[in-house]
Order: sequence, then structure tokens, then C-alpha cells
Amino acid sequence: MSHPLHEIAHISHAELLTPKAQESLRFFVDVLGMEVEAREGQSAFLRGWGDYQRYSLKLTESDTSGLAHLALRTWSPEALQRRVAAVEAAGLGIGWSEGDLGHGPAYRCTDPDGHVFELLYEVERYTPPEALRPALKNQPQRYVGRGAAIKRLDHVNVLAADVRPSRVFAQEQLGYRLHERIELDDGTESGAWLSASIAAHELIYTADAYGVRGRLHHLAFWVDTREECLRAADLFLDNDVPIEAAPSKHAIAQGFFLYGLEPGGNRIEVTTGGYFVFDPEHEPVVWSEAERRKGQAWGVQTVESFHTYGTPPARAPG
Amino acid sequence: MSHPLHEIAHISHAELLTPKAQESLRFFVDVLGMEVEAREGQSAFLRGWGDYQRYSLKLTESDTSGLAHLALRTWSPEALQRRVAAVEAAGLGIGWSEGDLGHGPAYRCTDPDGHVFELLYEVERYTPPEALRPALKNQPQRYVGRGAAIKRLDHVNVLAADVRPSRVFAQEQLGYRLHERIELDDGTESGAWLSASIAAHELIYTADAYGVRGRLHHLAFWVDTREECLRAADLFLDNDVPIEAAPSKHAIAQGFFLYGLEPGGNRIEVTTGGYFVFDPEHEPVVWSEAERRKGQAWGVQTVESFHTYGTPPARAPG
Amino acid sequence: MSHPLHEIAHISHAELLTPKAQESLRFFVDVLGMEVEAREGQSAFLRGWGDYQRYSLKLTESDTSGLAHLALRTWSPEALQRRVAAVEAAGLGIGWSEGDLGHGPAYRCTDPDGHVFELLYEVERYTPPEALRPALKNQPQRYVGRGAAIKRLDHVNVLAADVRPSRVFAQEQLGYRLHERIELDDGTESGAWLSASIAAHELIYTADAYGVRGRLHHLAFWVDTREECLRAADLFLDNDVPIEAAPSKHAIAQGFFLYGLEPGGNRIEVTTGGYFVFDPEHEPVVWSEAERRKGQAWGVQTVESFHTYGTPPARAPG
Amino acid sequence: MSHPLHEIAHISHAELLTPKAQESLRFFVDVLGMEVEAREGQSAFLRGWGDYQRYSLKLTESDTSGLAHLALRTWSPEALQRRVAAVEAAGLGIGWSEGDLGHGPAYRCTDPDGHVFELLYEVERYTPPEALRPALKNQPQRYVGRGAAIKRLDHVNVLAADVRPSRVFAQEQLGYRLHERIELDDGTESGAWLSASIAAHELIYTADAYGVRGRLHHLAFWVDTREECLRAADLFLDNDVPIEAAPSKHAIAQGFFLYGLEPGGNRIEVTTGGYFVFDPEHEPVVWSEAERRKGQAWGVQTVESFHTYGTPPARAPG
Repeated sequence: MSHPLHEIAHISHAELLTPKAQESLRFFVDVLGMEVEAREGQSAFLRGWGDYQRYSLKLTESDTSGLAHLALRTWSPEALQRRVAAVEAAGLGIGWSEGDLGHGPAYRCTDPDGHVFELLYEVERYTPPEALRPALKNQPQRYVGRGAAIKRLDHVNVLAADVRPSRVFAQEQLGYRLHERIELDDGTESGAWLSASIAAHELIYTADAYGVRGRLHHLAFWVDTREECLRAADLFLDNDVPIEAAPSKHAIAQGFFLYGLEPGGNRIEVTTGGYFVFDPEHEPVVWSEAERRKGQAWGVQTVESFHTYGTPPARAPG
Repeated sequence: MSHPLHEIAHISHAELLTPKAQESLRFFVDVLGMEVEAREGQSAFLRGWGDYQRYSLKLTESDTSGLAHLALRTWSPEALQRRVAAVEAAGLGIGWSEGDLGHGPAYRCTDPDGHVFELLYEVERYTPPEALRPALKNQPQRYVGRGAAIKRLDHVNVLAADVRPSRVFAQEQLGYRLHERIELDDGTESGAWLSASIAAHELIYTADAYGVRGRLHHLAFWVDTREECLRAADLFLDNDVPIEAAPSKHAIAQGFFLYGLEPGGNRIEVTTGGYFVFDPEHEPVVWSEAERRKGQAWGVQTVESFHTYGTPPARAPG
Repeated sequence: MSHPLHEIAHISHAELLTPKAQESLRFFVDVLGMEVEAREGQSAFLRGWGDYQRYSLKLTESDTSGLAHLALRTWSPEALQRRVAAVEAAGLGIGWSEGDLGHGPAYRCTDPDGHVFELLYEVERYTPPEALRPALKNQPQRYVGRGAAIKRLDHVNVLAADVRPSRVFAQEQLGYRLHERIELDDGTESGAWLSASIAAHELIYTADAYGVRGRLHHLAFWVDTREECLRAADLFLDNDVPIEAAPSKHAIAQGFFLYGLEPGGNRIEVTTGGYFVFDPEHEPVVWSEAERRKGQAWGVQTVESFHTYGTPPARAPG
Repeated sequence: MSHPLHEIAHISHAELLTPKAQESLRFFVDVLGMEVEAREGQSAFLRGWGDYQRYSLKLTESDTSGLAHLALRTWSPEALQRRVAAVEAAGLGIGWSEGDLGHGPAYRCTDPDGHVFELLYEVERYTPPEALRPALKNQPQRYVGRGAAIKRLDHVNVLAADVRPSRVFAQEQLGYRLHERIELDDGTESGAWLSASIAAHELIYTADAYGVRGRLHHLAFWVDTREECLRAADLFLDNDVPIEAAPSKHAIAQGFFLYGLEPGGNRIEVTTGGYFVFDPEHEPVVWSEAERRKGQAWGVQTVESFHTYGTPPARAPG
């Protein structure tokens, strides 16, 4: 294994754009059950009850939807320096920013597909106000139980016009491990599931049906049980959140899912489960077109939009 | 409410036909987790761990599939006499049989669609052998946990060329309560959910797509939790049981479901959940075509076969 | 079976007294997740999202705690007349009241232990305001998911100085069926689990450790899954609700439980599960002292207070 | 952070001793649901359906009970060399063994308390026979669902006469991260929860009540859901497996647990849940005696034996 390993600790936060700031905020607070930790300018900083940092979602008003940037926390200051050097060497660096609410200096770069990443190490740990102080001291925040009560941001699925170079970038420049991928009959790589930890996936690249660059497929938020995914579906239903895919189990990564669209148009997943990869030599699982045709784990065929829709919206090539 | 009430206690058992007796038996024992309580002639008598009677499924080898008969236990010997009189008066009586393994005299009749019912009162209670003696004395049998470990037969869905007269028969001659039904735009009744208890459904009539009479849509077996339905889906998958509909939640009756086909071709549901009807004056919920188009509770569209396939197999009218 | 059957449909509501009205209300609304359907005088009328009636809990400010009365809805107006005649004949009648918010005329009586019952038939069905209108038309109210999000009042456990006569009253005058009971070595009956439906228990009598009359052991509220009981425990913990008994499974009736104390001092259970009694001739299960010593289903020994504490509080006999 | 990091990948397997080999084997196969992958001499090699290696439990007949050794797989051959050098430098090395069924050369050492560890890198991956081939190619084995159907060995809790030096050894020589610990009022460290991954705990040291060295508290096996823990309790109950602690939630690490004793006397946990530690700078949570007195998460007080019993059995000091 010549790739760097154990350099990225986890996704620190995602910045999501929405053209419907108030409705989106209501969704993340009332339906997903997140807390507003801070507001600044056109942004609200939101957290799940299990986030050890101050926030994992920065929701920013914009004239469109999509992912503004994805911030990754490294395992150490040294790892940060090494990753910065690697992305600069790859010609994908943008430069340092002074930091943002809740974290220190961050180095901006893009993946080959054009998604903006931030690499950072220094973050502020969350200190709950009295009303959110938990009973158990090993828990960052009280469990309020509002809405779907998501625990934290779990993984991010971005779209790429060409999956392979971005997947290789994630492995070689960032140090992600590749756990599963899809290879079409013509040799095209149409999806790649990567992780920086034992979790089966933390960063996913799938093919953009329109060949557009830099788009988002979905942000996935974690709940601890499948029952909470089912419960979230009831909440989506009764809160008029469009359900794109009802709860079921993925074949790839075996995660349990529920997909819906937040008011700004971004696809949101409530997820749990999946398997752990303990094997240091884990050989990536490769799925063929024929195997993918069987649908999800229990045979569910995802709707067409799941394979074409992303944010910001794109048009089919004319 | 002029209908008789509290006359039927519950479905005592169903007799299912299979052209693949051995494979079907393996399915009910190894995949659904039932116990063989007895064998006699071409039949095996099977029970779930929660059945208070000796069995709830009689599996009989045949040259075809489908439902041979459905046995209903009345609340009392007097209720049995009253129901027999009612079905005889309706011209649907067949006559008394001497009983079968595990139960006493049974009166045979049909519903207007031609499904054979047995009405009976006397049944034998289950006495477990040493190896199946439960730790808790209020439980009829040890929880073995094999396969999907279904607890008992829960409900039966039969198909009818014409739903309405059979539904009215179930209410007027048998004393079932109607909880929900579907009424198409042209006034046709295409489905009716009835119950003899607070459970949302115990007996279901849905329209036979081919206009054939006397066919079965599915037998449904109960598990106590949705997690067991999800687990059953994993077992179906790894035991090559065709999954017709992956676990999700019904809109009508709100039951949680998993549908698969047993080797003999009969559709089997693993189910839990649903709501209770405590209101003595409960007004049946009527669903329109437009409402049904929304799919199941979370928007899942059931596959075409779900609306057409039944046993024994039928051909589309030429 | 000479007892009347199918006369009581279900517990319509309970009136609970609290010396801490505001704190208790906050508990039922924010922690249990009930809705305030109405307020009148010193009372708030509360409902779970699955209640078909307007409310199932009347919470009334008082100088003490305990159960003010328990209202039972009969299966029909005729059943109401028959039950009134029966309790009058037993010398336990009090008389008719004109009704209360949400229901018509009610006949008041007591059980031999002095608990006040109301018998009634006419009730108002719930009509949700726009904000609580459900997506599924067979559900009375939107699933809001606040707090433990209890669905409805499930069962009531009262204490009795002498269990047996009250249990016999419930069977003979009211028509409850006896499913399980405890008989001590000296022949004393120390607990009785009764039901008017297939649910394993709806009305429970257990012995008052202090020999006081008319007290309450607990009100139990239903959730559909065990996961929701576990989740409720997290909510109790983080809302400073004293947990008297952490989630586990009862031996008797096999219900899954969580017990806590609401601010007014009344014991509240969040419950699910249990078994159904489909057998019309079900022989009550009798537990001995030795059997009860084994604790709950999985061996949990309930704390001492569980066997002595009730509301209003009593003192140990001097 | 001066400790080595990312050197140990995971616990490869545990070798458990039993004086009742046949009964113990029956427990692991029929009640826990493991598969016998191989037998050799006095040992059976057992696997959960999610183990990527051939086995995670070596069960060996002996005249006593307890842990024979614990094998750890490193992240790389180089990490293995570094760890061997570190334990040798600490004077705790024993020497290389040629390997065992399913793995290559292993270096034996002890922790300061005398437990035998094996450090190894080369392992054989599991190849299922036809009957155990899974439907999903990213899963090592078919989900058979027998018994509690545990997925894999999750964590090991050993007892130590003196916790601190062994905990420091695990950090400094092996590279484990310390996530939580208990510090008594007199400054004694009575428990330490360590992990080599984001899982809250993988290796636990707790104080041996008798001051004996080298004993085992328990082996913990993973299931994916809390419902499977509850189900396992029913299986323990109906299989006469003594339940030491019924399912509930730990305060420390927040794992969901069920504890029982296998026939050989070793304590076995069925576990799931817990939180993930994503923070590279995670500050260990320190619990005081007063905090521990509150019991487990929901207030459950573990029985006395939980704090004193270990294997092999020890006597109270004279």
C-alpha cells in the first residue's frame, strides 16, 4: 500500500448552499433535529447532538443549491502540512484561508472534478449551554430528540464528470482508502466508496449523468438505529418532505438509507448501519453493471432521479 | 351496527397447497422458522412459536398451489351454531366434517367468490415437548430463533373476482368488521380490509386481476418487531427466496411488510405493526384511485406482479 | 364462561391528579410528546398522536397526586345500560354525570377498592387542526415525533388493599377477561392482569403494600417499538425524569417497559410489546411466589419502590 | 500525542479456555450462532458471519477457564516490527511462534499484568464454502441467522491487579488510544477503555477484585442492532444460559449490553452501539467514584458478581 494512510481523521463539516434559506433552516432544525450553534452573515452553523465540534453543517443562503465546500480535519498538524504539500504538488491547491467560525487556518484546494475541499487541523470543541448539557459526560450534548434527531454528519456523496481521477486524488493526495467501486462494462468507473476510518464509506464519488463538474449527490446524516431511519420516514411524510427513496438497505456498503429533498433542493440521506473494514489489506470490492442491475440489497430499484439528479440542478446535455 | 359482532375469535389455520412439498416445507421450517407439529398423509402441520393451538398452517402436497381452506375459530359453541345457520341461510353452506388433526367438528362453506372456509370451535391447545418447553410459562413454546422465527399466522389476503359480495359476506354472515377499503373511480370495490379483533386487518379481499375465483394473494406471518422484518429480508436474500417487495410500510392498515415467494409459488408476507381499532363505531376508511397512486406509506410503488399474481397461477384473459 | 364479554371496548381516558400542574404538563407535552387538545378549569386534556378520541388523559391540578377516575367506553349504548345495571346491582353505583369535554353522559361507580370508574359510550372523535393533519388518512393525527411521542394511553395499573374482589368485579360487573394473576403461598391474590381485548393487559390490579385503598400504581402509554422505549429512556435521562426501572421485559404479559416518575409524583410507564390472547377459553396463567422471585423476563429484579410506591403517597402502617 | 498511533488494526482473535469443551462449543455454535471453521487438537476455531478472517475465536479445552491469549493484527509488517521492538524494549517480550491455523508468524508477549498477547500481521482471509456463500459480494459469509447470530468478536475486557501499568503499556507499547477511564477517590485507576480505531472501546482493563493477575472479565461479540441484543436475551433465557446482566446501556462507552455465562464459566457479552471517537485529540473522559455510583446509563446497578467475577475463578483473599 503506497498510499498515505491515517492522514485525514474525518469530514469536519460541509457547507451547503440553498436558495431557500429559511425553509432549509426549518428542515435541518425541525425535521432533522439539528441545533443552530451560530449564525454569521448569510450562514447558519448547525450541529447534531453527537458532534464533538461546534458544527458539522454550514448552511449558506445563495442563489443556487449544492456544496460550497467540504472541510476535512487531519489527524495532526503534521498530517495537514503533508496533505497541503501533496495537493499543491498535484497542482490542485488554491491557498490558505484564515479560518472560519469554529476552526483555524484552512487550506483550500479542489479535487480534479472541481469540488472545493478545505484541509484543517485546529477546531473548537463544543461546549453546550446549560439547556443542552447532557446527563452522560462522555456525550457532547443532550439528546433532545426533536425530529429525526440526527447524531452527526456521516458521509458526503459528490458527483464527478469523471469519477476515476477524483477517486485517485482522494487516495493519493488525501489518503482515503478505497473500499468499493463500480466498473461499467466499457471499463468506466461510475462510482467509488472511500473512507478514512473503519466505516465502510465517508466520501463517495458517483458519475454525474450530465457530465457536469462539481456537483453534489447528497449529504448523509447519521442515526444510531434503523428504527430511527424508519421513524425519519414518518417525519418526512408528515412534514411534506419529498421522499425520493423510502428506507431500505444499500447493496454497496450495506448502509440503511432514507433519501429526501430539503427545501433548497439538495438531496439529504438519513443513514445508519453498514459494515466496518478492519482489514488493512482490504481489496476493493468491484461491482459490474450486471450486479448493479439487481438493485439494492433487497432488490429495490432506485428511481431514475437517484441516478441523474444532483445540485445545483443541471440540464441534460442538449 | 346491525352486523353480528364478536362471533369469530381468529383465524385458526390455513391449508396451503404446494406442488413442491419438500422445498416448501424446508422454507417454512428453515427460513420462516416454524416447527413441524405433526405429519399426516400428504400434509405437514406447522406452528409458530407463539401459536397457542397445535398449528396454524397445514401444508399439503398438491399438483398446484393456492389456499385449500381457511379455518376460523368462533368465540363459543353458540357462536359457531349461529354462524353456521347464517351461512346456510345465505346458501353458501357445504356441510359438517368430523374434524381434523388438532380440532373438532368443522362446518365447511364458501364465500361468494368460492374460497372454502371452515368454522369450528373445539381446538387442541399446544403442549410442547421437553425440547421446546419455554422458560416463561405464559408463552406456549420456547423461542428457538431459527430463521425468521415467525410467531404465528397473522392474516390472510384472498383474491376475489368481485370483492364487494365477499366482503359483505364476511361482515354479515361471519361478523367481521370492515376497517378500510378501496373504491375505484367507477365505484368498483377493489379491496377490503376486515378484522374480528382490534388488529387493523385479519382478512383481506382484493380484486383478482384476471377475474378468476377462489385464489390466494398471500398468507402473512407475524413477527413482533420491524427489525425482525428487516432481518427476514436478509434471510430471504441469502436463502434464494425471491423477494417480491422489500420491507416497507403499507399505507392501508400501516403494517410493515416483506413479501416473498415460497418454493411452491405462494406469496408469503412477514409482517408486524399496523394500528389498533378501538372505536366500536369505527367508520371504514375509503381510499380512492388517486390516493392509491401515491404508493405505500413512504411512496414505494409495489411491482406490477403484486397486483396481478396469485395462486394458483392464472392466465390473463385472452 | 358465564362472565359478560365484549361489553367494554377500551379505556377511554384517565384523570390524573397532580400537585405540580405546570411541571406535570411540561412532562406530558415535552417529554412524552402529547398534545394539549383543550384546557378547562384546573384541567388540561391531552392526547397521543394515535388517539381516535379527542384525548386519553385529563390532567388536573390538585393538592395531591393519584387517579381521579378511569373512564371506560362500552361497545354499544346497550352494553352501557347493561354495565350500569350490573354495577348498581352490586351496590357500587354512584350515579350519572352529564358528561365532560369530549364525551356524553357517564355513569360513575367504584370498584370494591374505591377507585372511581366512569362508564360511557358517546365520545367525540378527534378532528385535527391543519397543523396536525396527517399524511395518511387512516391515522388520526400527524406524527410530530416530539419527545417520546407516545401513541396513546395503553393500560392502567391500580393498587388495591385486596386484589381479589376488585378483580372479580372487573370480570363480573364490567366483563374484563382475566389473563394472568399472582397467587402468594398463603393463597392471597397479589396481582391480576385483565383485558377487554386481545391485548394481554389493559387493566391491572396489584396489592397495595400499605393496605391503602384507591391508589394508583401507574399509567402506561404506548409506543409501537421497543426502540422507542429505549429512546424514551434517553429522553428521561436528559430531561431529569427519575427513572425507576430502566427498559426491560416483563415476565407477566411480556410487555417491554420503562418506568419513571412525572413531576407530580405519579408513576408513568412507556410500554410496547406483550402478547395477544386469541384463545376464547384462555386459562389464566397463575404465578407463584417462587416464580415471581426470578424477577422480570430476563432476570431483572425491580427495585423495592416498585412494590410499595403508589399515588397519592401513603405511609407504611405504623 | 507522543504515543504511537495506527499500529494495531484490530483484535485478530482470542483464545478462550473451557473445562467443558462440548457444552461451550454448543453455546458458541447454537446460541451465539458462530460457525466452526476448523478443529485442531483440543481446539475449535469459530467465526461470526461478518469476520473477514477465518476465525475470531479459538476455543480450547482445558482444565480451567479464562483467556489463553489475545492476538492483535497490526496495520502493516513494519508496524509489527515496531511493536515487537517496543514490547521487547519494555522487557515484556516472549518470542516468535511459527503461527497457527489461519495466520503467520506471531510474536508473543505479555502485558504488565501477565495476559498473553500475540502480535501478527499475516492472516488468511475467509473463503466460504458453497453453503455459506453470501448473496452480497461485500459480505464475507452468508447470514445464517442461527441463534444470536453474532457478527464478529468486538472487544475484550481483561482484569488487572493494577490497571494503570497495563493501560499505559497498551498505549505506549501497542499504540492504543485511551478514551475513558475510572479514577477512584484515592487516585487508583480502576478501569480503562482503549481503542485502536474510532470505536469507543476495543480493549478494556478493569480492576481485579481479588488482585489476581491475568484474568478475563469478558469477551464481547457484536450484533448490528439493539433489537438483536434483546433477541439474544430471549435466546439465553430459553437456552438456560445464565443471564448476569439483562440488556441495558452502559454509561461508559454507551454500548448496549447483555451479559451471560457460557458453560465453561467465561462471561460473554452480546453488544452493539456505543459512540465513535473521531477527534484526534480526544481527551479521555474520567469518571469518579461518585459518578459511577449512578449505575449504568439508565440507572441500572450491575450485580455484585459483575465487579468481582472473572475467569479463571479466583478466591477472595483470605
